[in-house]
Amino acid sequence: ASAGVAVTNLNLKPGHCVEIKGSIPPDCKGFAVNLGEDASNFLLHFNARFDLHGDVNKIVCNSKEADAWGSEQREEVFPFQQGAEVMVCFEYQTQKIIIKFSSGDQFSFPVRKVLPSIPFLSLEGLAFKSITTE
Amino acid sequence: ASAGVAVTNLNLKPGHCVEIKGSIPPDCKGFAVNLGEDASNFLLHFNARFDLHGDVNKIVCNSKEADAWGSEQREEVFPFQQGAEVMVCFEYQTQKIIIKFSSGDQFSFPVRKVLPSIPFLSLEGLAFKSITTE
Repeated sequence: ASAGVAVTNLNLKPGHCVEIKGSIPPDCKGFAVNLGEDASNFLLHFNARFDLHGDVNKIVCNSKEADAWGSEQREEVFPFQQGAEVMVCFEYQTQKIIIKFSSGDQFSFPVRKVLPSIPFLSLEGLAFKSITTE
Repeated sequence: ASAGVAVTNLNLKPGHCVEIKGSIPPDCKGFAVNLGEDASNFLLHFNARFDLHGDVNKIVCNSKEADAWGSEQREEVFPFQQGAEVMVCFEYQTQKIIIKFSSGDQFSFPVRKVLPSIPFLSLEGLAFKSITTE
C-alpha cells in the first residue's frame, strides 16, 4: 500500500485515544494503521484486507519488533467498504489497545511491549482526512 | 519550545487547507506551526510569540531554506491566549499561504519556493489536539 501520513511525537498516553478519519480508495486491496515506536516497532499493525495475502474482508492485527512480526490475530468484524470513509478510534490502555468503530463494534489487541506513551503513528493505503487525540 | 507533533507525507496540495487544533500551555512563551519539506526547509514558520525574543503578543512569520532563515513578516492580529484552545487553518495556494483564524481574521504569507504539494508539518510548544485536511 502507498506510504501514507506518518506522525512522530504523538505522545499518546494510557487512557487516551487517537481517532483516524480517512477515505478508502475505490480499488483499495487493503489499508493499515500502525501505532508504536517507529516504522520498525509497532505495538499494533491494524491491517484491513479487502483482498490481500489470500484474505478477503478480514482484519488482521499484529505487532512488530525490530522488523520481526509477532503472531497474527484475526477478527470477525469488518465494517469497511472500498471507496467509503472510515473512522476508527484506538484507545491505549497499557496492557491492550482497544479498537472502536463508528459502527459500535470493538475489539482489543494485547500490548506485547508496554510503552509509557505511544510516539509513532502511520497510515498505509488510506487517504488521510484527520487525526484527533482525546 | 518543546518539540511537538511532526507529520510527514502530509501531501497538502494547492487549493487545500490543513486545520490545526491544539491547546496553549498556561506558561507558553510562544508556539509555532511549520509547513514545508522537512525540519530544515519551511515554506512557513508561523510563530506566535507571547513573550519571546523581545516580542510581546506578536505573530512573526518566516521561511527557512537549508536551515537559513529568510526575512521576517510581522502581523498585527494576535487572537491567542495562554492556556486557551487554538484553531488555525493554513490554505496552500502555490504563490501564498493564507492563514485563517477562528476569529475570522486572516492574512497571507508569500511562498518563496513553490512545491507541488507540502509534505511536512510540525508543531512547537503546542499541545496537539487534531490535524484535519480539507
